[in-house]
Amino acid sequence: MSDARTDTPTGMGASTDEDPWAPRKQRAADWFRTLRDDLCARLEALEPEGQTFAREKWQRGDGSADLGGGEMSMLRGKVFEKAGVHISTVYGELSEQFRGQVAGAEEDPRFWAAGISVIAHPANPHAPTAHMNTRMVVTTKNWFGGGGDLTPMLAAARTPVHDDTRDFHAAFKSACDTHNAEYYPRFKAECDDYFFLPHRKETRGTGGIFFDHLDTGDWEADFAFTQDVGRAFVDIYPEITARRLAEPFTEGDRQNQMRQRGRYVEFNLLYDRGTMFGLKTGGNVDSILSSMPPSVIWP
Amino acid sequence: MSDARTDTPTGMGASTDEDPWAPRKQRAADWFRTLRDDLCARLEALEPEGQTFAREKWQRGDGSADLGGGEMSMLRGKVFEKAGVHISTVYGELSEQFRGQVAGAEEDPRFWAAGISVIAHPANPHAPTAHMNTRMVVTTKNWFGGGGDLTPMLAAARTPVHDDTRDFHAAFKSACDTHNAEYYPRFKAECDDYFFLPHRKETRGTGGIFFDHLDTGDWEADFAFTQDVGRAFVDIYPEITARRLAEPFTEGDRQNQMRQRGRYVEFNLLYDRGTMFGLKTGGNVDSILSSMPPSVIWP
Repeated sequence: MSDARTDTPTGMGASTDEDPWAPRKQRAADWFRTLRDDLCARLEALEPEGQTFAREKWQRGDGSADLGGGEMSMLRGKVFEKAGVHISTVYGELSEQFRGQVAGAEEDPRFWAAGISVIAHPANPHAPTAHMNTRMVVTTKNWFGGGGDLTPMLAAARTPVHDDTRDFHAAFKSACDTHNAEYYPRFKAECDDYFFLPHRKETRGTGGIFFDHLDTGDWEADFAFTQDVGRAFVDIYPEITARRLAEPFTEGDRQNQMRQRGRYVEFNLLYDRGTMFGLKTGGNVDSILSSMPPSVIWP
Repeated sequence: MSDARTDTPTGMGASTDEDPWAPRKQRAADWFRTLRDDLCARLEALEPEGQTFAREKWQRGDGSADLGGGEMSMLRGKVFEKAGVHISTVYGELSEQFRGQVAGAEEDPRFWAAGISVIAHPANPHAPTAHMNTRMVVTTKNWFGGGGDLTPMLAAARTPVHDDTRDFHAAFKSACDTHNAEYYPRFKAECDDYFFLPHRKETRGTGGIFFDHLDTGDWEADFAFTQDVGRAFVDIYPEITARRLAEPFTEGDRQNQMRQRGRYVEFNLLYDRGTMFGLKTGGNVDSILSSMPPSVIWP
């Protein structure tokens, strides 16, 4: 079967039998689910009282058309005060307002996107908050995007030489270097640029990697890289949390943690493109805002 | 020295001896200070342990030029978990980015603005949060703007027929009706339109009034109206708080209050034009974000 992308773009919108992109879309969506299952199992294993993720499916739109949907997984435990691991596969047409803002959607508003999005807020102030997401997007263009970044809560851990940050970066560097020696320095810099609060003149945390519109022309290679980014997170973040979850902390540490979480809220609501895009395109509000920290202070 | 502003619009920028607007600007700035003093005294009087507002002055800019500044007043008490009453008088030139967004600044970037901004977060979940601000702005145009709105925290009070909301609206309606019978219905509707969270399909609270670009051509009348809006707030909000501050509440009420405050954060960071404008024009971050509730949960 010839790939119709040679003359008109395909693979946008819902998968069909005729869609030459259907197998790739299926493989990506399957991978995000597998990664979700692995990560949830690793995080649940840290919970001493056996708390597990609660799952909830959602559909996009009002039900009158198939626009895809997703599955939220929320954990409210002892180690993780709140953690969300969400997968989604959505498709349809972008509203006129957003066509100019999504690559390849200017002339044809159809899109398909699947991904995983993770945010974990540990209870212990010594354990860092972390975020990871990866996605595959198809418009008239197609690409992968995503990344992972770490947000230590206490000042002493908010430095590039702290073990948690070093190990987090090392894990992503290793994932990057397997594929392309230029990836880590480039994607680390993009992460630092992105997770910055101009009004505070502060970074959100101690960084990680961030990439978008990755399309080298070799879909298999790009998919393999995206998978390795996910694997790196699954390997390192539960390990970092495990080493911190029993560290004693003071009420002052807890206050500092909740204040630092305020900065996290400020970033996500003032600057995060994903949050704003999701809220303004009728995404699932509960899923998008599940990134909000569980308890926050602005003293 | 000829004032080039006598044939072009005047009163923009810092006041000078030659500025024919100087007396009005002075009267407005003096009024905002008087209102600040009155309101702070009324709120402090409710504190059983005598907590008072802490004052802190700030200057706009890096000190190399006089761009105005302001004074923050923060109360952290027993009745008011956190309350801020801020005044400012600022001037200078709007950055290119913002000239198109401020009335009358397209062709001449000079501006002068003075105002008062109030936000009170009571500790008792039965006592509503409230916000009020009024301001005078001079570009090549000049106007007053402001308003006040109430945000009851518990579902039972979040209705237009609850006493607190009825009395709050009645106070502002009375202030409006003295000046123009059309003001209250118009400004009430503008308030409802403005304080709305599209992603939640919820209003922020139970409304009040909101007005902007008020310039009837009679500056004295517009100033008198703006003063009455401030007086209405000083009369009614401490009274509403006083009747609620001793009401018993449950841990569940407190949780609901802190969750409702999350909506307040979402509105202010996602939609509030004043917050975004302030943060992006180099306003005083502490002052702008002092509107953030003291303790919040996103369960």
